[in-house]
Amino acid sequence: MTAAIAAEEFQERLAVVADATEAMLDKLLSQAPLPGETRRPPRFLEAMRYACLGGGKRLRPFLMVETARLFGVEGDGVLRAAAAAEMIHCYSLVHDDLPALDNDDLRRGRPSTHKAYDEATAILVGDGLLTYAFDVTADPATAADPAIRAALVLALARGAGLGGMVGGQVLDIEAESSDKPHTAEAVIELQSMKTGALLHYAVMAGAILGKADAAAMAALSRYGQALGAAFQVADDILDVEADEVALGKRAGKDAERNKATLVAALGLTAARERRDRLAAEAIAALDQFPQGRKAAILKEAARFAVARKS
Amino acid sequence: MTAAIAAEEFQERLAVVADATEAMLDKLLSQAPLPGETRRPPRFLEAMRYACLGGGKRLRPFLMVETARLFGVEGDGVLRAAAAAEMIHCYSLVHDDLPALDNDDLRRGRPSTHKAYDEATAILVGDGLLTYAFDVTADPATAADPAIRAALVLALARGAGLGGMVGGQVLDIEAESSDKPHTAEAVIELQSMKTGALLHYAVMAGAILGKADAAAMAALSRYGQALGAAFQVADDILDVEADEVALGKRAGKDAERNKATLVAALGLTAARERRDRLAAEAIAALDQFPQGRKAAILKEAARFAVARKS
Repeated sequence: MTAAIAAEEFQERLAVVADATEAMLDKLLSQAPLPGETRRPPRFLEAMRYACLGGGKRLRPFLMVETARLFGVEGDGVLRAAAAAEMIHCYSLVHDDLPALDNDDLRRGRPSTHKAYDEATAILVGDGLLTYAFDVTADPATAADPAIRAALVLALARGAGLGGMVGGQVLDIEAESSDKPHTAEAVIELQSMKTGALLHYAVMAGAILGKADAAAMAALSRYGQALGAAFQVADDILDVEADEVALGKRAGKDAERNKATLVAALGLTAARERRDRLAAEAIAALDQFPQGRKAAILKEAARFAVARKS
Repeated sequence: MTAAIAAEEFQERLAVVADATEAMLDKLLSQAPLPGETRRPPRFLEAMRYACLGGGKRLRPFLMVETARLFGVEGDGVLRAAAAAEMIHCYSLVHDDLPALDNDDLRRGRPSTHKAYDEATAILVGDGLLTYAFDVTADPATAADPAIRAALVLALARGAGLGGMVGGQVLDIEAESSDKPHTAEAVIELQSMKTGALLHYAVMAGAILGKADAAAMAALSRYGQALGAAFQVADDILDVEADEVALGKRAGKDAERNKATLVAALGLTAARERRDRLAAEAIAALDQFPQGRKAAILKEAARFAVARKS
């Protein structure tokens, strides 16, 4: 397959998975209570839906779905696990946007959840999405084999928790409140926790669902790590380059805040070199898989991560 | 065993389980990162420890440990699951105390987490504890059988989520912002979600760890539900009766805020009658188990839930 065809098919698959994720989130966040639930407060459910539906590239679901497809696994079970990972991503945005944290009034061009509702609701929406992500992941409908479900839960919790995403957010806030410039090493660690860990989980979850062997797990882990890092450097570069309209948030604000970014730590040229090197590493990690449509699409995801405009 | 001996042994066991839970929480919240974690930010870990260690009756761990003991299951696995349930309880207190929610500066006689640290840290401490509870529950060290771990995770998420604890907190806030008096039915539903669901989980987790059969599950579910409801009515009554010193928070403040309480909905006399009836129901649900030390202690827990002074 030529690169041009791969890029086109990538965009198609990205759109297909985004639509399927949206439909699954819509179904999971419906009014009917599940066994063991009393009821779902209607206005609160609406706020959870506001925080999750109608936007985003759905990159985490895409990575999970496409990785599982490498092993011939697809369908509603994978989409449930993918929607759960997206819930974790969405909850983290809701809490990050709160006045006590990043104090962002806009998210994807719309009022952030605490502006559309209120702070108390936004805090609880985050808690609700975080909790529900584990419910959906642990439900037998996601995978018949309980060993797969328990492994998914463990990997998700570890990637999203104090030694991963939440810890990365802590380091980010600590960095922002410091006057000192940030070393590249510190920024790389911070980003690998804050953004990389959940992207890595998305890939590993696809491998767990696909019952990948140890060699495939290791290759996909390298892919997920390099991709996650590339994605975040690309974000830092976008912040410098992009205008407000394209991003739906105020561009250039990272610099205002002494945010820990690799552009600040390395300079723009070195940051771009690192981004492209990481994308190449991600692509190289997939070389153990048979060439063809599926692996080509995951490779294209690495190219997309660094070439995107928003 | 006479009632007096049961009460004494209950207090002993409550203290033993509280100490063991404290030790397990201390161990789980240690500095060393687990496989898959990058590192645990030290000040943040300290804040997580502040929110979890050094206080509380540890009623949820007690219920889980004693229920599992009915089936002859004890040890570190049960204590891990029990500590995880306690993390969920502690995270809910940290988030409930936030200025945007109940705005409580004191918790168990100490500054609440957002006062001892700051709001951003408190929000993330809650997120970290909530996530880590699922990590600990899903870890093979908690139970060798992945079916048990997946079942625990699902029951925990469902009890703690939008149709359980988080949903109950939402209803509580909605009730508080309303000027209308609250019906007893609405208060009972709210409390069964906000407090009852996690107490019920603690009992059910003991049954899951003990591989209880369907009849035992049903009896324990009735016990857990009645106990949880009795516990919360007792709380409402305590708020009216207790003085500030004994509770470590300002007593009588529920009434100031149009809080949804059963004392307000039913009056003090009817609330006391309901509390005692629920405790009797909880005790009756255990009659299917052989009389003896273990069942006697769980029955005593129901008596304690309604007779406690704080």
